Amino acid sequence: MRRRPGGRSARVQAAVFEATFQLLEEREYERLSMASIAERAGVHETSLYRRWKTKEQLVLDAVNHRVVQEVPVPDTGALRSDLIAVLQSLQLFLQSRVGQALFQTAGATLHLPELCALRQERWGQRRAQLQILFDRAIARGELSPQVDCQFLLEMLSGIMYMRLFVVNEPVDEMLPKRVVDLILAGQTNLIAN
Amino acid sequence: MRRRPGGRSARVQAAVFEATFQLLEEREYERLSMASIAERAGVHETSLYRRWKTKEQLVLDAVNHRVVQEVPVPDTGALRSDLIAVLQSLQLFLQSRVGQALFQTAGATLHLPELCALRQERWGQRRAQLQILFDRAIARGELSPQVDCQFLLEMLSGIMYMRLFVVNEPVDEMLPKRVVDLILAGQTNLIAN
Repeated sequence: MRRRPGGRSARVQAAVFEATFQLLEEREYERLSMASIAERAGVHETSLYRRWKTKEQLVLDAVNHRVVQEVPVPDTGALRSDLIAVLQSLQLFLQSRVGQALFQTAGATLHLPELCALRQERWGQRRAQLQILFDRAIARGELSPQVDCQFLLEMLSGIMYMRLFVVNEPVDEMLPKRVVDLILAGQTNLIAN
Repeated sequence: MRRRPGGRSARVQAAVFEATFQLLEEREYERLSMASIAERAGVHETSLYRRWKTKEQLVLDAVNHRVVQEVPVPDTGALRSDLIAVLQSLQLFLQSRVGQALFQTAGATLHLPELCALRQERWGQRRAQLQILFDRAIARGELSPQVDCQFLLEMLSGIMYMRLFVVNEPVDEMLPKRVVDLILAGQTNLIAN
């Protein structure tokens, strides 16, 4: 028996993810329900629950799938401009309803180890994609091979979450540049001394 | 008519906050309810609701009150060790159930402007308390007076939220030192060039 990739299961997933994104554009995360997603996607609610136990899991899955598949990894020829491009996308994304929803799943699932593990795994995938920026920079001699790239990436991204969701202060278009300049200056200074 | 500071209203608030902290040590934020807080504090649920409309608002109020009143602002004689002490407290706090609950209110109230404004205001209070660290460092000649202290504080704190709640990776006792050294090295390098 032949099993086509992109068969029924993949079509259902694509329809469910698309319905989730559409609904997140229309309403807040709080008012999203499994029933409304099933209806929009044209599938039975029970088949939704077979695959995703909660809306948190579904949103986490849908958003990470989109980020890994669709958000390009920049290649501008220099680490500084690559990282600025990454932070500019992140800043835009976290201000969108979809990005807000992803953040909201973090609070809602903090005490659900299975979903924390899923989030950890998906972040690992994205981090692996972005590792190439650092590898290229090391190859170009812009960055020391001893650098802890995961740490740098978290130092670069943390303020976006902090400002948008924790202190609720606005961000502006200069922020990605300021963040990258501070972190790269720090890295250079630490290596030099 | 005499109105004593620390009268009935202050006693009720103290009892309610204490009940909130006790319950947060015993159970997760998800299972905290206004009814359980009222019962523990020995007040009527209706009088709770007169003052706090939701459990999010109450938790936000209780935790910020405790942080502003009780978490000391370090004075170790040098900016580096002051900031390390601040991040060590933050790291411990965010791993406690009370700190986790505070984070969870952020996701739960993202679309409630009134509570976002409250969070912004309370952060402003804490930031004003911590400003003295930077003022002392500027007076000692350790830091340029042109520095944007709010930006530095957010750059220092962001990774704690990022790591504990967004990527769900563990933190270790070296993290505060690493973060402070990277940011201060960056700041020095940017000013020097």
